[in-house]
Amino acid sequence: MADFPITERNRIVRVPGRARYDETTIHSILDEGRVCHVAFADADGPVVVPMFYARRGSELLVHGANKGRITSLLESGATVSIAVTLLDGLVLARSAFHHSMNYRSVVLFGRGRRITDSDEIAEAVGVITDKVAPGRAADCRFPNAQELKATAILAVEIESASAKVRSGGPVDEPEDVTLPHWAGVVPMSVAFGEPLSDEHVTPGSELPGYLDPFRNR
Amino acid sequence: MADFPITERNRIVRVPGRARYDETTIHSILDEGRVCHVAFADADGPVVVPMFYARRGSELLVHGANKGRITSLLESGATVSIAVTLLDGLVLARSAFHHSMNYRSVVLFGRGRRITDSDEIAEAVGVITDKVAPGRAADCRFPNAQELKATAILAVEIESASAKVRSGGPVDEPEDVTLPHWAGVVPMSVAFGEPLSDEHVTPGSELPGYLDPFRNR
Repeated sequence: MADFPITERNRIVRVPGRARYDETTIHSILDEGRVCHVAFADADGPVVVPMFYARRGSELLVHGANKGRITSLLESGATVSIAVTLLDGLVLARSAFHHSMNYRSVVLFGRGRRITDSDEIAEAVGVITDKVAPGRAADCRFPNAQELKATAILAVEIESASAKVRSGGPVDEPEDVTLPHWAGVVPMSVAFGEPLSDEHVTPGSELPGYLDPFRNR
Repeated sequence: MADFPITERNRIVRVPGRARYDETTIHSILDEGRVCHVAFADADGPVVVPMFYARRGSELLVHGANKGRITSLLESGATVSIAVTLLDGLVLARSAFHHSMNYRSVVLFGRGRRITDSDEIAEAVGVITDKVAPGRAADCRFPNAQELKATAILAVEIESASAKVRSGGPVDEPEDVTLPHWAGVVPMSVAFGEPLSDEHVTPGSELPGYLDPFRNR
């Protein structure tokens, strides 16, 4: 896959050795993440809000209330900046200065649009539902006319993006490595717990197979 | 602790039953989170970036490069919006429409300042380092003059904030509960792995006690 062109908008200035501009890295971070932070500007200044999202090709799909603020903003075609951040570890160096985190993050820029074609809405609802758990879209009730009317499905085309990735151990100054302080990494990851059925699920019934990836078996 | 006044800036419009304006909830989310997303506006529009942070009273402390973009922005006193989001679960309802996530999020607004007093810098470095692992500030080398010169320690006073919290199971339409689709919650949490010592730690030496909370014992 291609790289995103490096421009003044997406260029990583700070610790450029951690920068990644290739679609493979950027898409894999977007696909692993489960919340994005969308920044926009209103009359009073910048605002950032967390949103659920799913990637479809070079777009992020989000949903909002039919007449909500985010919906109005994105359907107006306003430019937004969106970040997705995955935390992989705490990095403890012998010096306070070199403490860090291991992480993989994407910051992207794009303009929104509202999806209005009913076939495209249906496909996008499937992509968003499958982001919750791949396979789920085929095992739930599709939105009815009233639900579709209440919801806006929006797409943000990724026009510019960069990723930043830190991995590995602490990087101490050579003269610090003999200091009597522990140094290393505390790994971090997202843990899923055993699925909890709601009160209407028949007790003892088998869980659907698409939940297997979340189960600790 | 007090509530943040509800204004046009921090009022939760969408699903207001999930809104929280009390400092106790807001501070606990900020204290549990390990990355914040800072939104600001530049000449080209909105930008959001992930940052490490620590809360001290009613301020968030962050650090940046001495002459970095974020440093310039925050020391200018510009207003920023900052979000911290914790994910607690995937919520699978019988209808696509009622899929959701369990989460705890804070969105706040404030203005930055650069900390210039050397005693306050020392205290802030301690707070930021202890955010990595409580107790760590007393077990590492404090920044030297050169490191302090390279780093800006910045504070954002929380002027307005709100939290949004969803917990519990799916909320299906009454007529949907007999549908043959599984429904429930897949719990999510942050997992820490056994600390990995770097190559300069004496093999077999004991880990510091302040890492105990991260260990799976």
